[in-house]
Amino acid sequence: MNNFTYSIPTKIYFGKGQIEHLTELKESGRRVLLVYGGGSIKRAGIYDTAMKLLGEAGLSVFELSGVEPNPRIQTVRRGAGICRQENIEMVLAIGGGSTIDCAKVVAAAAKYDGDAWDLVLNPELIKEALPIYTVLTLAATGSEMDQFAVISDMTKNEKWGTEGECLKPKMSILDPEYTYTVSAKQTAAGTADIMSHTLETYFTAVPDAAVQARFCEGLLKTLIQYGPVALKEPDNYEARANLMWAGSLAINGLCKGGAEVTWCVHPIEHELSAFYDITHGEGLAIMTPYWMDYALSDKTVSKFAEYGRNVWDLTGDDDMLIARQSIACTREFFKKLNLPSALSEVGIDETHLEIMAEKAEKGCEGAYVPLTKEAILSIYKAAL
Amino acid sequence: MNNFTYSIPTKIYFGKGQIEHLTELKESGRRVLLVYGGGSIKRAGIYDTAMKLLGEAGLSVFELSGVEPNPRIQTVRRGAGICRQENIEMVLAIGGGSTIDCAKVVAAAAKYDGDAWDLVLNPELIKEALPIYTVLTLAATGSEMDQFAVISDMTKNEKWGTEGECLKPKMSILDPEYTYTVSAKQTAAGTADIMSHTLETYFTAVPDAAVQARFCEGLLKTLIQYGPVALKEPDNYEARANLMWAGSLAINGLCKGGAEVTWCVHPIEHELSAFYDITHGEGLAIMTPYWMDYALSDKTVSKFAEYGRNVWDLTGDDDMLIARQSIACTREFFKKLNLPSALSEVGIDETHLEIMAEKAEKGCEGAYVPLTKEAILSIYKAAL
Repeated sequence: MNNFTYSIPTKIYFGKGQIEHLTELKESGRRVLLVYGGGSIKRAGIYDTAMKLLGEAGLSVFELSGVEPNPRIQTVRRGAGICRQENIEMVLAIGGGSTIDCAKVVAAAAKYDGDAWDLVLNPELIKEALPIYTVLTLAATGSEMDQFAVISDMTKNEKWGTEGECLKPKMSILDPEYTYTVSAKQTAAGTADIMSHTLETYFTAVPDAAVQARFCEGLLKTLIQYGPVALKEPDNYEARANLMWAGSLAINGLCKGGAEVTWCVHPIEHELSAFYDITHGEGLAIMTPYWMDYALSDKTVSKFAEYGRNVWDLTGDDDMLIARQSIACTREFFKKLNLPSALSEVGIDETHLEIMAEKAEKGCEGAYVPLTKEAILSIYKAAL
Repeated sequence: MNNFTYSIPTKIYFGKGQIEHLTELKESGRRVLLVYGGGSIKRAGIYDTAMKLLGEAGLSVFELSGVEPNPRIQTVRRGAGICRQENIEMVLAIGGGSTIDCAKVVAAAAKYDGDAWDLVLNPELIKEALPIYTVLTLAATGSEMDQFAVISDMTKNEKWGTEGECLKPKMSILDPEYTYTVSAKQTAAGTADIMSHTLETYFTAVPDAAVQARFCEGLLKTLIQYGPVALKEPDNYEARANLMWAGSLAINGLCKGGAEVTWCVHPIEHELSAFYDITHGEGLAIMTPYWMDYALSDKTVSKFAEYGRNVWDLTGDDDMLIARQSIACTREFFKKLNLPSALSEVGIDETHLEIMAEKAEKGCEGAYVPLTKEAILSIYKAAL
């Protein structure tokens, strides 16, 4: 096990009706920037409830709405402008990962003198941020409990992740009922996203971080159990609750600490979203099994066999057979969730693969299985 | 899944050489009370290293030494007195759970006007505490990352747990190498303690907290894998690291949140320690399988079968058979760790069982399987 620092200061209020804790925002001041997306929180009634609670707590609310899926740097700049102009003291994101990611970089940009894009390209510039609060409405990115944010500049086909200790939310409210209205497509994509976060952490070259490996397996089993249930029964509380909590724990550092490895399917997918603006979780569902095909070798077979036995309950003595079956199970699971399994299904052809592979290579340095540009290109091509 | 609040603010520095972070104590002031036990930290060189680092950081160190296993309220009072007299600003415990528990209640008592025993009998009186720091030298109680403390008054045969949000340490240093010198007996007892924390959480009437159940299973598998290794090879870093991290995660609220249940084997064991001052983990190892024998019924068989299949890898269709085998596996595991399996082995006879059962009943209210005084007495008698 490697040395690590564990620090997950975010306070979580999990369950039905926990939005009442929004009144605690007054601990951070009086002027709040409310960040949200396209208005689904208004249809769901969450907006009205939040405004009522914030009003009762004596807070003045300013708004940054219209945050895009794959949130844009232009929106971040707009938010940072409001923060400076209105002397905003804290940021409240209500929405999914895109909204929260946007709010995080707004919170940092409000405390930074230069252009917000600097903070995306160079995480080290993120030294401080306004306090960040979130109300989660989609189980997927885990942004509600981690230090990461992913921001895009579509004018440049650029999509990069950034991070900072001060980007960890101070408090997040997780009410599984708020995800009842998430579409089947987004529920499946979210499940694939959480699964990918867990798999990227699980496939590590650190052999002896057993606690972390067992926790990853526990999250994967939970996703496998409840993803299909949430698809069939959108208002199944048990399924929504387990998916939501798994989403937060998959990426908050709990499973990673001591077993660090560079993620690789995410950088590979980020190029898909950067060039084609596809849904992140769908891109991950496509690429993960093809990455597995590439990664499986005599060197990695024991890890894949561990995955097959402990997650998919596969039995037998032949490690390579178990490993291959585990990849097949992964592929089948994504299909069962009605997720795409080839790039052609989401409108991606060979056109940009070369440049995408070149750009992805940088993000894959230090991955579990080394990936050159050529290797990434071969994975993209296999996935066509 | 029940509603829950997750708040684990303790920062953990895990791994070799992490003691260097002791210099960060200066964030909390200049005057520190160092709390430790019988001097093993001096023999191990940890005391000298700590004093050097604290000195370099400009801290003035006062000492409370001689903390007992099953720490006494008299020692807590002595520590609180030093805090008041010397205007102590923070408390640093270096040791195992007993030392940390003592330091926690000292930290609270320093901020309380009445007698420290009040804080043990009535947790609601714990409103504030000095900042608490720890350096852990024994994987067992999880006190380094939770809000609990257990204090005894042997003059009254009383041993009670107390708790408070402000008792969560601000920072804990977990260096697995510090546990290399822990004796086989204490290593086994610590493993049994962690196992019991996990089992008390796992056997819950909340049926749908899957993430939490899978995490419990992951911890149990880790303990089963590494407990025997640490016994045979005391300086096996992999084993010591996994036991240590499992110990912290078993009880810090991560596995419990959303699946709350009243613990029962702990109250049953506390009476053993209160009357006979035995090692807590040994008492748990004795009582756990006998509690399981009592708890297994048609109502609980599916939970026990889940335990057997997911933790002990038992196979077959007969739930009751799997359940019984799982109890046998638990019993065998403790024997494999050379832990006692009957009360007579630790010098306990029938003398006080009646009064012990009466006292334990109060602590068991709300347990997974209801336990009357008579039921507890029957469990004690079976364990003779």
